Amino acid sequence: MSTAHIQEILSYLHTNRKRFLQELKAILAIPSISTDVEHKTDMQRAADWFAGQLRELGMQNVQIYPTPGNPVVYGEWEQDANAPTVLIYGHYDVQPADPIELWQSPPFEPQVRGENLYARGAADMKGPTLAVIKAVESLIRHRALGINIKWLLEGEEEIGSPNLEGFLRKHRELLKADFCLNCDSGMIADDAPAITCALRGLAYFEIRVFGPAHDLHSGLYGGAVHNPAIVLAELIAGMHDAQGRVTLPGFYDKVRPLSPQEREQMARLPMDEAYYLQATGAPALYGEAGYTPAERVGARPTLDVNGLLAGFTGPGSKTVIPAWAMAKVSMRLVPDQNPEDVHQQLLQYLREHAPATVRWEVDDLHGAMPSLIPADVPPVQALARALEETWGVTPYFKREGGSIPVVAQMQQMLAVPSVLTGFSLPDDNLHAPNEKIHLPTWYRGMEALARFLLHLPQSSKG
Amino acid sequence: MSTAHIQEILSYLHTNRKRFLQELKAILAIPSISTDVEHKTDMQRAADWFAGQLRELGMQNVQIYPTPGNPVVYGEWEQDANAPTVLIYGHYDVQPADPIELWQSPPFEPQVRGENLYARGAADMKGPTLAVIKAVESLIRHRALGINIKWLLEGEEEIGSPNLEGFLRKHRELLKADFCLNCDSGMIADDAPAITCALRGLAYFEIRVFGPAHDLHSGLYGGAVHNPAIVLAELIAGMHDAQGRVTLPGFYDKVRPLSPQEREQMARLPMDEAYYLQATGAPALYGEAGYTPAERVGARPTLDVNGLLAGFTGPGSKTVIPAWAMAKVSMRLVPDQNPEDVHQQLLQYLREHAPATVRWEVDDLHGAMPSLIPADVPPVQALARALEETWGVTPYFKREGGSIPVVAQMQQMLAVPSVLTGFSLPDDNLHAPNEKIHLPTWYRGMEALARFLLHLPQSSKG
Repeated sequence: MSTAHIQEILSYLHTNRKRFLQELKAILAIPSISTDVEHKTDMQRAADWFAGQLRELGMQNVQIYPTPGNPVVYGEWEQDANAPTVLIYGHYDVQPADPIELWQSPPFEPQVRGENLYARGAADMKGPTLAVIKAVESLIRHRALGINIKWLLEGEEEIGSPNLEGFLRKHRELLKADFCLNCDSGMIADDAPAITCALRGLAYFEIRVFGPAHDLHSGLYGGAVHNPAIVLAELIAGMHDAQGRVTLPGFYDKVRPLSPQEREQMARLPMDEAYYLQATGAPALYGEAGYTPAERVGARPTLDVNGLLAGFTGPGSKTVIPAWAMAKVSMRLVPDQNPEDVHQQLLQYLREHAPATVRWEVDDLHGAMPSLIPADVPPVQALARALEETWGVTPYFKREGGSIPVVAQMQQMLAVPSVLTGFSLPDDNLHAPNEKIHLPTWYRGMEALARFLLHLPQSSKG
Repeated sequence: MSTAHIQEILSYLHTNRKRFLQELKAILAIPSISTDVEHKTDMQRAADWFAGQLRELGMQNVQIYPTPGNPVVYGEWEQDANAPTVLIYGHYDVQPADPIELWQSPPFEPQVRGENLYARGAADMKGPTLAVIKAVESLIRHRALGINIKWLLEGEEEIGSPNLEGFLRKHRELLKADFCLNCDSGMIADDAPAITCALRGLAYFEIRVFGPAHDLHSGLYGGAVHNPAIVLAELIAGMHDAQGRVTLPGFYDKVRPLSPQEREQMARLPMDEAYYLQATGAPALYGEAGYTPAERVGARPTLDVNGLLAGFTGPGSKTVIPAWAMAKVSMRLVPDQNPEDVHQQLLQYLREHAPATVRWEVDDLHGAMPSLIPADVPPVQALARALEETWGVTPYFKREGGSIPVVAQMQQMLAVPSVLTGFSLPDDNLHAPNEKIHLPTWYRGMEALARFLLHLPQSSKG
């Protein structure tokens, strides 16, 4: 790919900006709110619209697959069995617009004010989805698309993707790919592009401790039995040591240590102690000794209590020794931990530490694998290069502390790792009134995506 | 008092049993349910009935004092300023009869079946209250009452005596006495009379721990902040040491040690490990090392968690780091502890142990003084002798783990200690359908009370 050719592609993207904006306004005008059954036909209209875009691109096998919920839009571009295959993820559903009275312009009547386009879904994520489509279009129009593409545009991301796992399971063969491009993440600032290369996994449990057969009067029996709320508190207290490390047996055995390079990348992130203090409002920060807050959140496993319940919790006093106590306890996992190991570690911890004065049970409520795409694999390197060429700065490599269900599911169901990036800005009001997209950043995003797709075939497959 | 005189009195009590039973049936027919406003006139009828009994006895200054709730019946017998004054406590209100369909005979149509009289309030405590009246009657009819008596019969015991404290405060002078006789306690078996010589006090708190300014996503912030539910668990876990002792600073400083005699008395009680295991249904017992379960419940202070609440407690999983966590924590106290000391000890413990990563607050919700009447004071000795003469066995000396508000209030407001005894049996169905009183035990109770009142003047005052 010569520099001249790249310039033609970038020029095409520049020349067609007005049309791209018109198309974005068209899809933003469809109120595809997945949480609201009244918008069922809008969901279909939005799916049809994106399917139309894929057909116009010349994609093959474009289909709208029904699911028990909203349909999935699929399309593919298969040209070279030796070239890498990118699965492009997007979602065409949006959050509700409430509270609607706080919008300066109606949420489904897109309006440009200054450099921004205001509408529900502009940043999350009709804008980014259309940006990938336009980047692909620019390459196709110049016969420069040297890779295989598969599209998976779902309509239920904002309600937790309840039917995606079933769809992935059913279409495992169809969706085979080397990696997934997911543009549902964001920039750190409009001059600071970022790649999210890791997400933590999750293991979520409910622990119940049973003492007496029924609630007891604390006067008549206080001193005779072990209070299950106290036993539960003692068990929870024992789950961390004085260094803030989790004490479940073997918890850190499979944790991949951070390399000096990874620590350097994380140190560059504008998320220092002051950032976390401000974001959380906590009186002071806390965590595993020897790591920065960003490392602890992004790259180290943690254990939290998400809920506690026992006995009498209303106003005033009731002198009861509760018959049972419950805690929701969950762990955020990093590679190469997995939820089932952690389940066994929790059971072992309880077997070793729960006293004979109580019975206990554990429900395994939810698990998600951690995911990590190394910074040195070809797609991440290609994306980093494309972002740097476009913005003139080295992109940030982020690790996010949460799980994104679609990323975890693609990893688990399809063994497809995700490269996460995106072009929304921190002030784009995602999920809030006056959602917007910064148009110069959106256009620059298309350019970066075009460069990325151009760089990919030059890199070795996978 | 000659033996001949005692025999006359006992003979009087025997001869009049049929009348006493008729009178008991009459008062049991009045449905004086204090929790139900529909029975307001029944409350007045019951108060009138008891006032009539006192007048028939020849008591002086019999009055029905109104309160913001149900009235208090008062009467007195002042004859000798040098003789001891007994304040006789009783209550004329009863529990509701629900579930009414489980009664074999209507709850307010007293029915004798075998040796028992069935009716709501028979044992708790119209029967015992009338037994004291009849014991006093038997002495008065024989000019054998050598002490001063004051009566306090309330109508709100079953709803927590909400207006008693105000009444005691207002009538402090009127109610001056050396001790209170309270027959609202019970026997251990029909051949095992008992004196309750101690009740534990109570200090009840709500502790709230605050971490982040609002609930946080455990993925985005887990590892950055101290989870307040975990901090609370750690604080609770630290409140006991490995010996089951409470670690609040100075908690045991004022605890009166058990004497060898007291331990012997407690060892006699038919409340061994098997008893507590059966009564609680706990997998195993637990408590402060070095004490029997009965000692731990009756004579040692304890700390219990009565409630726990934090974060998400519904079904399933929610990955939240809660902004706050709450525990209801209460301590049962023994002489000479007091609730305000314990409040200060809790605050000191939290100041010393709560980390700087959280804020905390404590609400002081309820306090009650412990009470103890030593076994060697004259009224207890007189009662023990009377019970032994009547049943032919040494009575048990019980310490009860709970607080009885009226006992604590009389101690606090009037500085009047209570001697607790009673003639209900463990199978008398107090607060349950088919409440009954065992008539032979009730008659024997009158005899014991008559003997007790006879023995009192022989003992030194107070």
